[in-house]
Amino acid sequence: MVEPPGPGSEFRETHLRRSGIFLGTERLLVRKTSKFQTIEIYETTDFGRMLVLDGMVMTTERDEYLYHEMLVHPAMVLAPSIESVLIIGGGDGGTLREVSKYSEVQRVTLVELDEEVVRLSRQFLPTLSTAFDDPRVTLHFEDGMTFLQRTQDRYSVIFVDSPDPVGPAEVLFSRPFYELLADHLEPEGILVAQTESPFYHQDLIRSVVQSLKGRFPTVQVYLGPVITYPSGTWTYTLATRIPKESLGPKRPVAKETRWFHDELISTLFVLPKELAHALG
Amino acid sequence: MVEPPGPGSEFRETHLRRSGIFLGTERLLVRKTSKFQTIEIYETTDFGRMLVLDGMVMTTERDEYLYHEMLVHPAMVLAPSIESVLIIGGGDGGTLREVSKYSEVQRVTLVELDEEVVRLSRQFLPTLSTAFDDPRVTLHFEDGMTFLQRTQDRYSVIFVDSPDPVGPAEVLFSRPFYELLADHLEPEGILVAQTESPFYHQDLIRSVVQSLKGRFPTVQVYLGPVITYPSGTWTYTLATRIPKESLGPKRPVAKETRWFHDELISTLFVLPKELAHALG
Repeated sequence: MVEPPGPGSEFRETHLRRSGIFLGTERLLVRKTSKFQTIEIYETTDFGRMLVLDGMVMTTERDEYLYHEMLVHPAMVLAPSIESVLIIGGGDGGTLREVSKYSEVQRVTLVELDEEVVRLSRQFLPTLSTAFDDPRVTLHFEDGMTFLQRTQDRYSVIFVDSPDPVGPAEVLFSRPFYELLADHLEPEGILVAQTESPFYHQDLIRSVVQSLKGRFPTVQVYLGPVITYPSGTWTYTLATRIPKESLGPKRPVAKETRWFHDELISTLFVLPKELAHALG
Repeated sequence: MVEPPGPGSEFRETHLRRSGIFLGTERLLVRKTSKFQTIEIYETTDFGRMLVLDGMVMTTERDEYLYHEMLVHPAMVLAPSIESVLIIGGGDGGTLREVSKYSEVQRVTLVELDEEVVRLSRQFLPTLSTAFDDPRVTLHFEDGMTFLQRTQDRYSVIFVDSPDPVGPAEVLFSRPFYELLADHLEPEGILVAQTESPFYHQDLIRSVVQSLKGRFPTVQVYLGPVITYPSGTWTYTLATRIPKESLGPKRPVAKETRWFHDELISTLFVLPKELAHALG
């Protein structure tokens, strides 16, 4: 059922107690309550189409490249092998699209809890969902934890492209989940998780970093802008068994990027003072 | 006259056609229409006190350090001399506060159009306006262009801490203004201007860079986050007659910073792909 708002309406997301962002909306393209959540896709005035899950902005056509490029390309460049890639979450297809830009990739496994997100993204977000038909891709519709528990495969690179840590996604920020991920990563593999805002979620980042340090000698947080995410800046946490001093680019960044490129690699892990201190 | 809003109100700033940010406000501490603009200072719910000029957020207590540190410290570290510093704008005192952290600084000249901004900042923004009584500081209440035209002094470092390029501040983004600044900069001096959002104002940045390139062999744009500014990421443009390959730190970053530190210097001028391309 497509309902109002019509032109002149706006979508609001509160990020702190009483502050946040608003985005003018032209049309609600679809609203669907799945088994797991309410999925909405809007046509916005300024940000193209926007995917909203349970009232929170997941992605917009205007700024999604910032998030997806920063999540994906650092690991794709630094990993010794990128033959097999696992994506947990990422039902909009943006992460998959970036991964598929590397011809070295042989197999991509995407594990998304909610089949409806994929279905609606394929229908309404064609610039994100470009790679679902790539023959290298296998989709599983189940929660990431269950998938990892019932399978033995190991992957060259793993991305955790989760929603915010509320409701069904909370487990994706827990220590048992990271333990399972470690068991599914090749010895020289690289894992990257989105870890929220460097300004609003320092406790969460610290807890993820601590969980990962139990299993990985190298854990690096890095930053990138995302206009429509809380605070406008986002963090990504990378973990690997490769010693930090041996981490270096193994191949060039895919040509089709807009934001990330080879020149940024050397700057990636230099954190601003307050984050360097907060994360020890 | 202090008027509503009371608790439960909110301040909105529109950044694109129909999108922007909202900040819950607890109290309007002061609203004053000066000869030049309407000045408001609010107590917000989430961002401490907030200075608003003609409806646009200039600074908030919560995130002002991000802006002021990134504007000030790169030049203060890279300049061969920091003996005399000129600040155009910056009536809230934040830029002056950062400059005053360097004991090598002998003289600071601050040229602010609107005396009321300084007066109200001193009254209501005590964490920003800490350095107005520093004996090294001289204040001039006049527009930057007039000041530069009537004086001959040269400065080691110049900061352009202007409001957005509308109304009286528009001239602060013009080529004649940058020509005048060049004439007032010591041969090895460094000039830094705030140059708006890397996502929303690429034309403006390009125009500033072009204006500066007429007078300076080295022009470098760099980025930093500012939560309450349009798009959440901001640009700063640095110009100097020092060749790029000779630019390097001359002294450590002041100890009292929260965001910028020595480690960030080497990463500063590496721009993301779309900006590197847009700025040639």
